Amino acid sequence: MTTPTSVRAVVLRRRPDGLPRTDDVTVTVTDLPERGVEDVLLGVADLSLDPYLRSTLAGTHLDDPAVAIGGVVPGRSVARVLASDDPTVPVGTWVVAETGWRSHAVVPARAVRPVSVPTGVRPSAALGALGMPGLTAYAAIERHLRPGRGETVVVSAATGGVGAVAGALARARGARTVAITGSSAKADDALGLGYDAAVVRGEDGWTGALRRACPERVDCYLHMGDQATLDGVLAQLSLGARVSLCGLMDQYNGAGRTTLPAGTIMAARAQVHGMVVHDHGDLEPAFVDAVGALLRTGGLRLHEERHRGLESAGAAFARLMAGHNRGKVVVEVDPDPR
Amino acid sequence: MTTPTSVRAVVLRRRPDGLPRTDDVTVTVTDLPERGVEDVLLGVADLSLDPYLRSTLAGTHLDDPAVAIGGVVPGRSVARVLASDDPTVPVGTWVVAETGWRSHAVVPARAVRPVSVPTGVRPSAALGALGMPGLTAYAAIERHLRPGRGETVVVSAATGGVGAVAGALARARGARTVAITGSSAKADDALGLGYDAAVVRGEDGWTGALRRACPERVDCYLHMGDQATLDGVLAQLSLGARVSLCGLMDQYNGAGRTTLPAGTIMAARAQVHGMVVHDHGDLEPAFVDAVGALLRTGGLRLHEERHRGLESAGAAFARLMAGHNRGKVVVEVDPDPR
Repeated sequence: MTTPTSVRAVVLRRRPDGLPRTDDVTVTVTDLPERGVEDVLLGVADLSLDPYLRSTLAGTHLDDPAVAIGGVVPGRSVARVLASDDPTVPVGTWVVAETGWRSHAVVPARAVRPVSVPTGVRPSAALGALGMPGLTAYAAIERHLRPGRGETVVVSAATGGVGAVAGALARARGARTVAITGSSAKADDALGLGYDAAVVRGEDGWTGALRRACPERVDCYLHMGDQATLDGVLAQLSLGARVSLCGLMDQYNGAGRTTLPAGTIMAARAQVHGMVVHDHGDLEPAFVDAVGALLRTGGLRLHEERHRGLESAGAAFARLMAGHNRGKVVVEVDPDPR
Repeated sequence: MTTPTSVRAVVLRRRPDGLPRTDDVTVTVTDLPERGVEDVLLGVADLSLDPYLRSTLAGTHLDDPAVAIGGVVPGRSVARVLASDDPTVPVGTWVVAETGWRSHAVVPARAVRPVSVPTGVRPSAALGALGMPGLTAYAAIERHLRPGRGETVVVSAATGGVGAVAGALARARGARTVAITGSSAKADDALGLGYDAAVVRGEDGWTGALRRACPERVDCYLHMGDQATLDGVLAQLSLGARVSLCGLMDQYNGAGRTTLPAGTIMAARAQVHGMVVHDHGDLEPAFVDAVGALLRTGGLRLHEERHRGLESAGAAFARLMAGHNRGKVVVEVDPDPR
């Protein structure tokens, strides 16, 4: 390996206003900071694109500080250690780290997490099914919704990074799973992933289609979507239903506040849970076991949309936030960083 | 006893539109149906006035059929058995029954519930603290909110039939209790009932007063109120807060749909529970033990607003639905029915 002195990075040109646009960001060449003895140098393989980043870019995220204009877009990636003085993460280790959207990064050795994925599964699984989206799905299904055998579980954004795992976990518990997707192409994807039925939200009569797909109503609902989707599903809750709020697309995109109809919650004697994945780190070992097993046995297969090159990141993010992606969105920076 | 042949009853003249008005109902004389061998004749002592009746009168209740114009207003009362062929409910027994708003009623013997209240406590306790409102409070506190020692519990409609019991139960668990009331007179009542602080909703700066009353934010919230109250409290939830939706005053009075801000629920990682008391009948024995003990030991005292005579029922109900009542609203029909 030759240590690079300058690296490429994706920087913020303009804060997103409404749906993110391709040219909200641009690729630039930037210096690589010097590596201290407690740092590792990482070569980025795959970037993870995630909806929560929109609020970080817009400066409206609850916890994260806003990115400066001209600053590197933050984000997680799977990367390989190219230089290290720390024996716990030697050169060659595959890790997940908060590198931001760039080709190389220098980060503290203690801030990287070695990746362990089942043999034959891509390291990028650590960004999706075995990463934060997968843990979100695991916590939603196993801690909040807890579907029983034969219960009906509806998953919105059903083929996305969270949804695909949630569906597989619910089926592993013996539940019937119904996908809500944003297009008929994604509905086909959902059936291919193993969902028992799939409904395209927003189509004429979609709530009727949902009713036919859920003849015994909806026992569990994992929500990652907009107001109309939320209202359409909540109207069909069974008594004692459970709802996990995992993502509010309207709010991410600044389209206004999402609300829950309190009368519907009362009438269904429902439980609604606000899901923030950071609260559920204690589930990590059980999650890795369970989802690793599903990946090995074919109960879950990776559903990724791969884009090539840092230059594709802006368009890929716009596509994700418009809901046009097909699976977990990954930007491949370098398939074999050395 | 002489069996009465005609009895007085309160009948519906006009469905409430918005806030109920005194002359939505009127008192009339009606026939007493003949008593079969499986029926008991009841002399009504006290009527229970409850908010859910508004939707029954308006014909918008989820479960109950609408009352016909000219029909007797339905409702629960505490009554004495005046004639009976059933040895399990002999003449003289105090019972709770669905008599409707009338002086006497003939109902199936199996549909009455003998009252057991601690010595020295009025039988009307069976309509409030030891009745459905009390059970609602018990289920909300013990099954949904489960406040821990030192946690902050906010109760809206804090001095009403449900609220007064909820506050006492929360204090018995070691929680700090903060009342939200509709007037400064009721705030004084709340402090007299044992709340640690009381805030008058709707007053200028009331959310600031709530913040000062809850310096460590709100861990548990029992909601029986309007949209502004809900929004004001939810903005101050702590992480992992629990919310029980027990009553939606806007919806009872037809003032539109109450909504919950989904982003706030997510940010607080909150749990929201829709409460319908019928689901919690299994708690009845534990509830009677716990609230009976509080009544005996002074941890809870009956907080009743008593009106005299069937003629006062319309005005009392209008007052209740406008939120002007001071405590559980009871209409005394006959203090000693024989």
